[in-house]
Amino acid sequence: MVTDYFKNRYSIRAYNPDREVSGELINSLLDKAIHAPNTGNMQTYSVIVTRDPEQIAHLAPSHFNQPAIRGAKAVLTFCLDFNRFNAWCRINGTEPGLDNLQGFVWGVIDTAIFAQQFCTVAEMEGLGTCYLGTTTYNAGQIAETLRLPKEVVPVITVTVGYPAEQPGVQPRLPLSAVVHTEFYEEPDEAGIRDIYAEEEALESNRRFVAENGKDSLAAVFAEVRYPRSANEQFSRVYKEFLKNQGIGI
Amino acid sequence: MVTDYFKNRYSIRAYNPDREVSGELINSLLDKAIHAPNTGNMQTYSVIVTRDPEQIAHLAPSHFNQPAIRGAKAVLTFCLDFNRFNAWCRINGTEPGLDNLQGFVWGVIDTAIFAQQFCTVAEMEGLGTCYLGTTTYNAGQIAETLRLPKEVVPVITVTVGYPAEQPGVQPRLPLSAVVHTEFYEEPDEAGIRDIYAEEEALESNRRFVAENGKDSLAAVFAEVRYPRSANEQFSRVYKEFLKNQGIGI
Repeated sequence: MVTDYFKNRYSIRAYNPDREVSGELINSLLDKAIHAPNTGNMQTYSVIVTRDPEQIAHLAPSHFNQPAIRGAKAVLTFCLDFNRFNAWCRINGTEPGLDNLQGFVWGVIDTAIFAQQFCTVAEMEGLGTCYLGTTTYNAGQIAETLRLPKEVVPVITVTVGYPAEQPGVQPRLPLSAVVHTEFYEEPDEAGIRDIYAEEEALESNRRFVAENGKDSLAAVFAEVRYPRSANEQFSRVYKEFLKNQGIGI
Repeated sequence: MVTDYFKNRYSIRAYNPDREVSGELINSLLDKAIHAPNTGNMQTYSVIVTRDPEQIAHLAPSHFNQPAIRGAKAVLTFCLDFNRFNAWCRINGTEPGLDNLQGFVWGVIDTAIFAQQFCTVAEMEGLGTCYLGTTTYNAGQIAETLRLPKEVVPVITVTVGYPAEQPGVQPRLPLSAVVHTEFYEEPDEAGIRDIYAEEEALESNRRFVAENGKDSLAAVFAEVRYPRSANEQFSRVYKEFLKNQGIGI
């Protein structure tokens, strides 16, 4: 069944160095993805396609030189884009009003939907993709490399290539933890322990905890991977960047 | 070809009143969608599935009683959810730090990716879906109806049912307007006019402009559908709601 793809998909971070991904192929995939839904059909997003190896090398430090970007055959930077919509409003003598929290959230949602639809189409056609979570850390640097004008904000980066690895399906929390029927049900402490038990028991996660010298997987997340101090610092930087781009949230 | 689906998809706002959508079906679709990528595999999202007609009727005013929700067989409210992750951190004696702009943006992105993957799976299996853009307007009211605890925020609502209409593929901007190669290229005034010419020429859009007594499609967007004053007012309300839920952006 076609939809078996969805249960069996996984991200790919290592790409076949000998197999190129043409600009025509990327465009044909985006031409499908663009039919994903978006707010009011305003399409307040853009994507910058980087295939030139030199340009990929320029982008890599913004993503802390992760292997996924260093070996990528194409890097797609999906941006919230009010620039085009605002220009259209202004030449029609009307004043747009998307430069606030509501506009920002719609833009982020629509950019994510577009990016995800691209990943689905690409993976269904045999490519490997990986989201880089570093995009919102170093948005200013990315904007400079890609020459983004005002009112354009990097939100998501996806690396692309033909797979050179088969890491397999990654575990997910039990569906019942994520899906609530009619009303939200807050689990008690035993419930929370149950929800995370399987992930905590994974050999790879136990190793991860030991390597980081922590006593729980939660502590690795909260203290090593996503510590408050770094999150708050990068939040200030992203908010300042948004303001410079003309968006006040 | 399977991926022909993507180019031919469209949202459905009218549903077959005689054909139910079971909870089992919704769960089996979500069980596929949950394998979509997410930030650090933290899965900071939840979905509340509303199928009880009385509960759908309670939700409808939060969405301004749009026909799509009034006729829906299931309503899925996709939420950013730090509650579960934070509870896990706290019972492990560690302090999470996602209650800031970075955490919020990751949460919105991951919620949108999950919602979009659900829509794709659902549509590929013959259901019709529609995003309701009203979710971020009345998040507080929705939270009350669904009994959302602290640290849970409604982001996206999707209505579901078997199609009772065939509106057909909606137009999109030319791909070249949205896709930039290596560097962002800002169109000049003539370029902007070209980009929007096809949408402006559509009979349905010309009617829309006339009905609203405006002299351009851009003015309908900026002054009627998404006016600055409403966007700013709803931004204040959403930001206050986020703060009440424990998220300071």
